[in-house]
Amino acid sequence: MDHSDLRAPAWQLSERARKLTSSAIREILKVTERPEVISFAGGLPSPATFPVAQMREASERILRDAPAAALQYSATEGYLPLREWVAARYSVGGVQIRPTQVLITTGSQQALDLLGKVLICPQSPVLVETPTYLGALQSFSLYEPRYVQVPTDDAGLIPAGLTSELTAGARLLYAQPNFQNPTGRRLSLERRRALAEFAMNAPFPVVEDDPYGALDYAGEPLPTLLSMAPEHIVHLGSFSKVLAPGLRVGYIVAPEELHFKLVQAKQATDLHTPSFTQRIVHEVVKDGFLDRHVPTIRALYRDQCAAMLAALERYMPEGVSWNRPEGGMFIWVSLPAHIDSMKLLEAAVANNVAFVPGAPFYADHPEHNTLRLSFVTVPPAKIDEGVAKLAALVRTHL
Amino acid sequence: MDHSDLRAPAWQLSERARKLTSSAIREILKVTERPEVISFAGGLPSPATFPVAQMREASERILRDAPAAALQYSATEGYLPLREWVAARYSVGGVQIRPTQVLITTGSQQALDLLGKVLICPQSPVLVETPTYLGALQSFSLYEPRYVQVPTDDAGLIPAGLTSELTAGARLLYAQPNFQNPTGRRLSLERRRALAEFAMNAPFPVVEDDPYGALDYAGEPLPTLLSMAPEHIVHLGSFSKVLAPGLRVGYIVAPEELHFKLVQAKQATDLHTPSFTQRIVHEVVKDGFLDRHVPTIRALYRDQCAAMLAALERYMPEGVSWNRPEGGMFIWVSLPAHIDSMKLLEAAVANNVAFVPGAPFYADHPEHNTLRLSFVTVPPAKIDEGVAKLAALVRTHL
Repeated sequence: MDHSDLRAPAWQLSERARKLTSSAIREILKVTERPEVISFAGGLPSPATFPVAQMREASERILRDAPAAALQYSATEGYLPLREWVAARYSVGGVQIRPTQVLITTGSQQALDLLGKVLICPQSPVLVETPTYLGALQSFSLYEPRYVQVPTDDAGLIPAGLTSELTAGARLLYAQPNFQNPTGRRLSLERRRALAEFAMNAPFPVVEDDPYGALDYAGEPLPTLLSMAPEHIVHLGSFSKVLAPGLRVGYIVAPEELHFKLVQAKQATDLHTPSFTQRIVHEVVKDGFLDRHVPTIRALYRDQCAAMLAALERYMPEGVSWNRPEGGMFIWVSLPAHIDSMKLLEAAVANNVAFVPGAPFYADHPEHNTLRLSFVTVPPAKIDEGVAKLAALVRTHL
Repeated sequence: MDHSDLRAPAWQLSERARKLTSSAIREILKVTERPEVISFAGGLPSPATFPVAQMREASERILRDAPAAALQYSATEGYLPLREWVAARYSVGGVQIRPTQVLITTGSQQALDLLGKVLICPQSPVLVETPTYLGALQSFSLYEPRYVQVPTDDAGLIPAGLTSELTAGARLLYAQPNFQNPTGRRLSLERRRALAEFAMNAPFPVVEDDPYGALDYAGEPLPTLLSMAPEHIVHLGSFSKVLAPGLRVGYIVAPEELHFKLVQAKQATDLHTPSFTQRIVHEVVKDGFLDRHVPTIRALYRDQCAAMLAALERYMPEGVSWNRPEGGMFIWVSLPAHIDSMKLLEAAVANNVAFVPGAPFYADHPEHNTLRLSFVTVPPAKIDEGVAKLAALVRTHL
């Protein structure tokens, strides 16, 4: 057989597949693998924060004490002791979360896919922040919703903007109240209360995606929406930013009725999250490790965030603005309105510095003069150098 | 807040979610967790075959030598050395499979979900064997196809039955040519050639799902469809039956054009399969371990299959028939036409023996007098005892 002509057969694809596009972030990451590039583009946590010794001990203990269970098929719902740990962690201040509400997912991204499967029909409205997490847009888009952007200002989502007109027919509202990706914004206590109040009366779930909640620099977390309206919020959590993303372990906390449907969808999707990685996570976190470990991540990111804010202050010309995050991994920058950050990126990559343009984070009507900077994997001296380069390029575009 | 009334809010679900049902197998497995039950219901490989020592060494080496990479986010396509290993394994006899055709999945079940995402539109025809793998029906059903059953006899799928009338408009044909779940049937060389020929002319992919191919008792595998029509077959493989299912590592080999769409769909679905488990698999298999290990699994299953066939011969009354598998994990039993195996199951479970009724494995027009027996996790003495009990119950239903 002649394999010189490797064109694939022209098979007919589904409607949703024809609309699929690759993540701009991922394409950019390929470029930034060159060691000479100072990359503010990554959404990756710093590998310096991975608790390697604890992972080694946990893996060794599990394969010594429970190898058959760790290597066998297991329940779709997830490893029960880990589900119990998650439920207990959220059961504070009079709130009771039950292990029967917890579904372990193959990373938090899978939670978005399962919610899309179970809640979204073609053309049904899905409410999102302006801008919002790009990965959520990609995930939900496979189920062909109609996105509706929720009014948002520098302090995040505006609950008063959730009019009955805007929210009519919606299947879900998707929000990241803590240090949102891409903006780094945190929703105030007052707005959280208003959003929880809204959720209690809405005929659809408010999805609280919370991968960054533990990363508040002052160690003074605001209460979750889940704690304010536990039967009306679908809460997504992840171990990617506080332990290690390569294990792909996250979870959904949801009322049982929805939980049951999510379990059925997950069974059809990948049967269950790997037994071994779930047990590693549980083995590492079960005795309070996160309470000692997370403060070290916070301190690292706080210092690097401060270094980036200082560099922005030092180098950026007038007309450029940014926020001062209280936690998380990102700073959101607005350039003068006529500068397209996608074009700036081309020049930046040619100068060995990278970031993510803001446009892909909008469901609709993107603001092309915005961009996202991540500071978590770059040491302070390199942050200074990279921001100086970027500022010089902005000046040439003024 | 009063949490005494925990009824979930009546949120509107997607059309597909309303159709979702739980797997009969999974519900039955819950009952069979009682230690006194002799279960022929499981699709689980025997934990006696898990290479625990090798897994421990691999985990230790990876977390010593490459902890940051093993615990960090990684490429959606999968770990390149593992993709290269898969490509090399299928590049035999003049066939060249390229690493760029290989996508690592979170178990083979995820491959089915991704194919559904990328190929199936609501009401588009999907061709399946009669009966077929229940998990594939569950997975594809989320994308709301119209199933078309392909003519099948005791030797499996009949390629001559794939008329242009039957296959018109199809998006894919799904088949398990090796020791099919649930029937244990293996497709003959002649039918493979005819099916590969069909694939070369079909305007849709033939999906060859092959989790059991390595488990032929004589160690004389028949060539894969992939080897016969490498640019026209989508081949699904898994490490679940030859290493351990709890790692959830499988793969799709597909022409690059489809591969690229599958990668985009996977990125939106779970970003990537856990970096750590992919590296464990590669570390264990890279130096030829499977060639030494798989024969031990084959020998175990061959002996237990023989024990079950002997017991069926010894105890079953006239009018009951079954096949004699040449490999895999299952025997397919036909009862006299008037006996409903679902009702038999109720009586069986009350007598502490379990199996899986055949009906859920049919996309349409189920044969209610069929059932699936698995012999892989039950020792021969218990196989004899369980089959004797089952035969006694069949006699009472005659």
